[in-house]
Amino acid sequence: MKVALMPEPGKMEIIERDIPEIKDNEVLVKIEHVGLCGSDLHYYEHGRIGDFIVKDPIVLGHESAGRVVKAGKNTEKLEVGDYITLEPGIPCGICEFCKTGRYNLCPDVEFLATPPYDGAFAEYLAYPENMCFKLPEGMDTVEGALIEPLSVGFHAANQADAKIGDTAVVLGAGCIGLATLMALMARGIKEVYMADLIDLRLNKAREIGATEVFNAKKVNAVEEVMKMTDGQGVDLVIDTAGSKITAQQTVELVKRGGKIVLVGMAADPVFKFDFGKLQAKEVLINTVFRYRNIYPSAIKAVGSDLIDIKQIVTDTFGFLEIKEAFDYNIENKDKTVKIVIDMNE
Amino acid sequence: MKVALMPEPGKMEIIERDIPEIKDNEVLVKIEHVGLCGSDLHYYEHGRIGDFIVKDPIVLGHESAGRVVKAGKNTEKLEVGDYITLEPGIPCGICEFCKTGRYNLCPDVEFLATPPYDGAFAEYLAYPENMCFKLPEGMDTVEGALIEPLSVGFHAANQADAKIGDTAVVLGAGCIGLATLMALMARGIKEVYMADLIDLRLNKAREIGATEVFNAKKVNAVEEVMKMTDGQGVDLVIDTAGSKITAQQTVELVKRGGKIVLVGMAADPVFKFDFGKLQAKEVLINTVFRYRNIYPSAIKAVGSDLIDIKQIVTDTFGFLEIKEAFDYNIENKDKTVKIVIDMNE
Amino acid sequence: MKVALMPEPGKMEIIERDIPEIKDNEVLVKIEHVGLCGSDLHYYEHGRIGDFIVKDPIVLGHESAGRVVKAGKNTEKLEVGDYITLEPGIPCGICEFCKTGRYNLCPDVEFLATPPYDGAFAEYLAYPENMCFKLPEGMDTVEGALIEPLSVGFHAANQADAKIGDTAVVLGAGCIGLATLMALMARGIKEVYMADLIDLRLNKAREIGATEVFNAKKVNAVEEVMKMTDGQGVDLVIDTAGSKITAQQTVELVKRGGKIVLVGMAADPVFKFDFGKLQAKEVLINTVFRYRNIYPSAIKAVGSDLIDIKQIVTDTFGFLEIKEAFDYNIENKDKTVKIVIDMNE
Amino acid sequence: MKVALMPEPGKMEIIERDIPEIKDNEVLVKIEHVGLCGSDLHYYEHGRIGDFIVKDPIVLGHESAGRVVKAGKNTEKLEVGDYITLEPGIPCGICEFCKTGRYNLCPDVEFLATPPYDGAFAEYLAYPENMCFKLPEGMDTVEGALIEPLSVGFHAANQADAKIGDTAVVLGAGCIGLATLMALMARGIKEVYMADLIDLRLNKAREIGATEVFNAKKVNAVEEVMKMTDGQGVDLVIDTAGSKITAQQTVELVKRGGKIVLVGMAADPVFKFDFGKLQAKEVLINTVFRYRNIYPSAIKAVGSDLIDIKQIVTDTFGFLEIKEAFDYNIENKDKTVKIVIDMNE
Repeated sequence: MKVALMPEPGKMEIIERDIPEIKDNEVLVKIEHVGLCGSDLHYYEHGRIGDFIVKDPIVLGHESAGRVVKAGKNTEKLEVGDYITLEPGIPCGICEFCKTGRYNLCPDVEFLATPPYDGAFAEYLAYPENMCFKLPEGMDTVEGALIEPLSVGFHAANQADAKIGDTAVVLGAGCIGLATLMALMARGIKEVYMADLIDLRLNKAREIGATEVFNAKKVNAVEEVMKMTDGQGVDLVIDTAGSKITAQQTVELVKRGGKIVLVGMAADPVFKFDFGKLQAKEVLINTVFRYRNIYPSAIKAVGSDLIDIKQIVTDTFGFLEIKEAFDYNIENKDKTVKIVIDMNE
Repeated sequence: MKVALMPEPGKMEIIERDIPEIKDNEVLVKIEHVGLCGSDLHYYEHGRIGDFIVKDPIVLGHESAGRVVKAGKNTEKLEVGDYITLEPGIPCGICEFCKTGRYNLCPDVEFLATPPYDGAFAEYLAYPENMCFKLPEGMDTVEGALIEPLSVGFHAANQADAKIGDTAVVLGAGCIGLATLMALMARGIKEVYMADLIDLRLNKAREIGATEVFNAKKVNAVEEVMKMTDGQGVDLVIDTAGSKITAQQTVELVKRGGKIVLVGMAADPVFKFDFGKLQAKEVLINTVFRYRNIYPSAIKAVGSDLIDIKQIVTDTFGFLEIKEAFDYNIENKDKTVKIVIDMNE
Repeated sequence: MKVALMPEPGKMEIIERDIPEIKDNEVLVKIEHVGLCGSDLHYYEHGRIGDFIVKDPIVLGHESAGRVVKAGKNTEKLEVGDYITLEPGIPCGICEFCKTGRYNLCPDVEFLATPPYDGAFAEYLAYPENMCFKLPEGMDTVEGALIEPLSVGFHAANQADAKIGDTAVVLGAGCIGLATLMALMARGIKEVYMADLIDLRLNKAREIGATEVFNAKKVNAVEEVMKMTDGQGVDLVIDTAGSKITAQQTVELVKRGGKIVLVGMAADPVFKFDFGKLQAKEVLINTVFRYRNIYPSAIKAVGSDLIDIKQIVTDTFGFLEIKEAFDYNIENKDKTVKIVIDMNE
Repeated sequence: MKVALMPEPGKMEIIERDIPEIKDNEVLVKIEHVGLCGSDLHYYEHGRIGDFIVKDPIVLGHESAGRVVKAGKNTEKLEVGDYITLEPGIPCGICEFCKTGRYNLCPDVEFLATPPYDGAFAEYLAYPENMCFKLPEGMDTVEGALIEPLSVGFHAANQADAKIGDTAVVLGAGCIGLATLMALMARGIKEVYMADLIDLRLNKAREIGATEVFNAKKVNAVEEVMKMTDGQGVDLVIDTAGSKITAQQTVELVKRGGKIVLVGMAADPVFKFDFGKLQAKEVLINTVFRYRNIYPSAIKAVGSDLIDIKQIVTDTFGFLEIKEAFDYNIENKDKTVKIVIDMNE
């Protein structure tokens, strides 16, 4: 089978590997679509993300969906021919985090495309059945692959405990920002303000349904939101931009008794913060590390047309053009929100 | 001003009363629309609901909206000309229930149209500003009046802690059942089954968006739901029918680890229940007594067109025809979901 | 090794079996103490509990603790010589219930001494390391074995979300009732009323620290609690007796806005219940099916002398007298709370 | 009556005022004991706390208890002769924060000894009955007055959602730090580490029951805690010291998936913080602004001897020596934890 291997940062080559053998609890998946994620780009550009360092050649890609072509003898729910999406982390199942349902914090999780684990830019993947989720009738593998970034948005909304009637600001209108907007709207939250520096993204946000969008290059987003909310601020402020400036703005934007959720992580994540304002308003800050127990509900939301996740796709490339896709994305960050790789081409 | 007085059960007469004086914290409201609620009908037919007994002539009606025509000197947010809806219970604000945010349990609450307190079938009402909620641009007083039953549905969804991705059954497709369906859907819940005995109601449910509806006269609703859910049952079972049979069905319908919410109260509310099934599945039962802190979010949901609450209205009568409205409703329960009184006619 | 086999209900014999082989993730445990649980007695007397039916010879016992004598090669935390207690259910780790942290609801759990799985009345047990919990310095294997019933009490307090300042009634002062009392007290709840029919148990409750105890043969426990609480009832009512009468009393005893937790299951668990009172007070009913994620905190509570779990032990028998222990317990229910088997004798 | 007036910062004089008239919902309280709080000292030393500025002469003191000597005609629960403690904030009861049970965030709260409202260093106070709490048999007014700082500790434990079995670090062992320790221990938390710079306070902490105490002048508290927890950190880190350094340490001390609660506010509350560590461990930060709905449970905890709040008292002064008390406290911060004023002397 063909596999896209990154032998070192900045390089990408299609090589041949044996189709993997499946274990009894696994299925063999013919991968159909894989999304190109910011972390893939980061490994390709910089060779590391925080403490995760690419030391050996690695296969990237963790937003994937495909078709079951073989099922291990202990599998129970999936059958050959089923279209599925793969949740990219395989937790240990037995540590204290797993047993309490917080498997995203499992220290032994094996996460696709996170060193030293290979990812999904391959024709076939052997994967545990319990981390594969069947796509409902009418949902395709592009949507299936995009359940992954959508899940981050869903988890952000969960960590915010976002409730119908809340007002919200989402900082950053990239893929995760838009996924968060979709997650909030799907939960019945209709008053969502968004800020970003790139008009393309803000236009997407408006199209999806943001109440008002602000280009922070042109206007002061904090002032604008304050105007819209009679100086009260909003119940929920979710920072997906992951910059020092946006993180600092959260505490200005949030209403007394409100909540902040930090999703994006700043390149230099140590910076000044006004804890006085935080404490005087008795605000809570929650954080997001990947997601947990989200795939079933995110799939339902897309499968039932509550969310049109394809709205975030800006470009599609064939598998053999994967290097072009990476390079294009890096050179055109202002023109792309999400690139999807069609693994059949 | 004109007031519809029920001098004794089964009778209704339009009388003249003085327009009420407002206190400093009150506004005077010209009532525009009032919904006819099951409890109004019950007092009219039977003269009592449980321990609440009509001993003296009373004004019914508690689903109301209107226009502010005068504002007390300590009011701060409302102005003359504002269209508002009235939350019908005025809690004491100082008891342990009020202080912990559960003001619906306040033992000293003064609730419109609940003996001995008069209700809203009157041209004018003096009402505390903090229990009046301004209607947003584009929302009329029919919608405003119907925020009241919608709030019961919202509270039911809250008490179920209904989350996106949950599956649900709503038993009973009357006004409250449909409001519950709307509340669930607004929170992103797309798989909702409904059962009732009356086709008119089930057609409404389907129109609003129920996944599947079952007429329990014709099919076994429990069996049907089990078929749809691979024998698992659903995450949430909400009984709005308030009958012994539906309450007993909840424990059959609910999934392991799921939740039951009891909204409707049976006429004879002491009956056999299978606690063995409840305990073996570690199911939780929650209950609904009116609602609390719901009006702002319900108004937003209607004002933003997330919910089209007018879908539940089947008939409108003028104020002077109010007796006809009561009689028509009682004689045509199968043909009516919600009657609204236009107080200007 | 010696094993106590129940070839059929009412019989018990010591047989020889091979010491089990351990898997890589398991440890071999020399069992030191095993508590005799009501369910063991029930299988012995009646051959079944609900849908769990003893068809083949079975080894009973699931409240156990011992010493690690061998450790599989993939074990990480335990060492030979460690004293440990065994959490008796081994969940699958991959189903939706396990992944959401509710592994007690795992449909594939393998629970000691629940048909068809053998239990702990054996000299040795091979057991997964992650379900074994090391006992801290100063905690012995009698206490270790009793972590199991204590965990039911802890889970009951969790399901009640019992908070400091709450008032409580515990119905039933048997082993689980007393464990629940201990759990509530350990969480800072000081006003706990208890009712039972047996003075021995009530004396234990008083000794442990119950505010007031009521023998329901002699006084009306509901009336007594109402007197103590100015007619308000209590925040939490926990029924561990598992009888129709106590379950029915819960709704009388509970305060407006309070909570009921059902722990014990009635022999005939279908009975009349006053849902009217439940709903008028907006009360919540929660239930308990075993426990989850409790062992670490229960061990800490005992190990730090916050709880003296040995207070519930009334008798100790040697392993070879195990049949006498079963028979004695059945014939002397009024004189026993908890019998422990010393597996070394 | 005699009143201690602070005409300007640094001055204090006993003046005569009329005994206040009570409203119908108020009681007249003969004040017996008042605690000297850090905020009183701050106003006395600096004339302001953040945005709260002393512009006019003010009466300080908000930790108070006394005896009811007169009861307004609408009071219901209290009688002349009752010993009570006064919760110092009077919320409006009608804003969105009050209605949702978060009255500590009420923008119109009238808080004793917070400009422009006078406090409790007076012989008599007229106070709303619903903010007065009767002391149980055996609890005196020194304990009653100290319910106020204890409530901050209780609220901190609430905001941490501290559960039995959690491990904790409390940074700062002053009055609030010790109150937090007491709150945690009362909830069954036995593993609590404390750090401070002053040995007197750490000795108090040890006496109360801290597992281990660290003088941060002598040892590296972070390293010490890591040693005690196998490098894992603790579930809950509560910063009561309110310094840049302790706030920054919280994220080092906290375990993956754990919680931080910020109670004390730094003098210069804008400082660098490592959000990268926070996010990588998916840690939550909560904050504390005063407290809400705590008095009843804190009173029960003290009244039932679960907590011995008098352990924090280091000195007592008579009312006429109040200026000496202020000056002594300011000059001897290392020797005092809590000074109580006996209003009868």
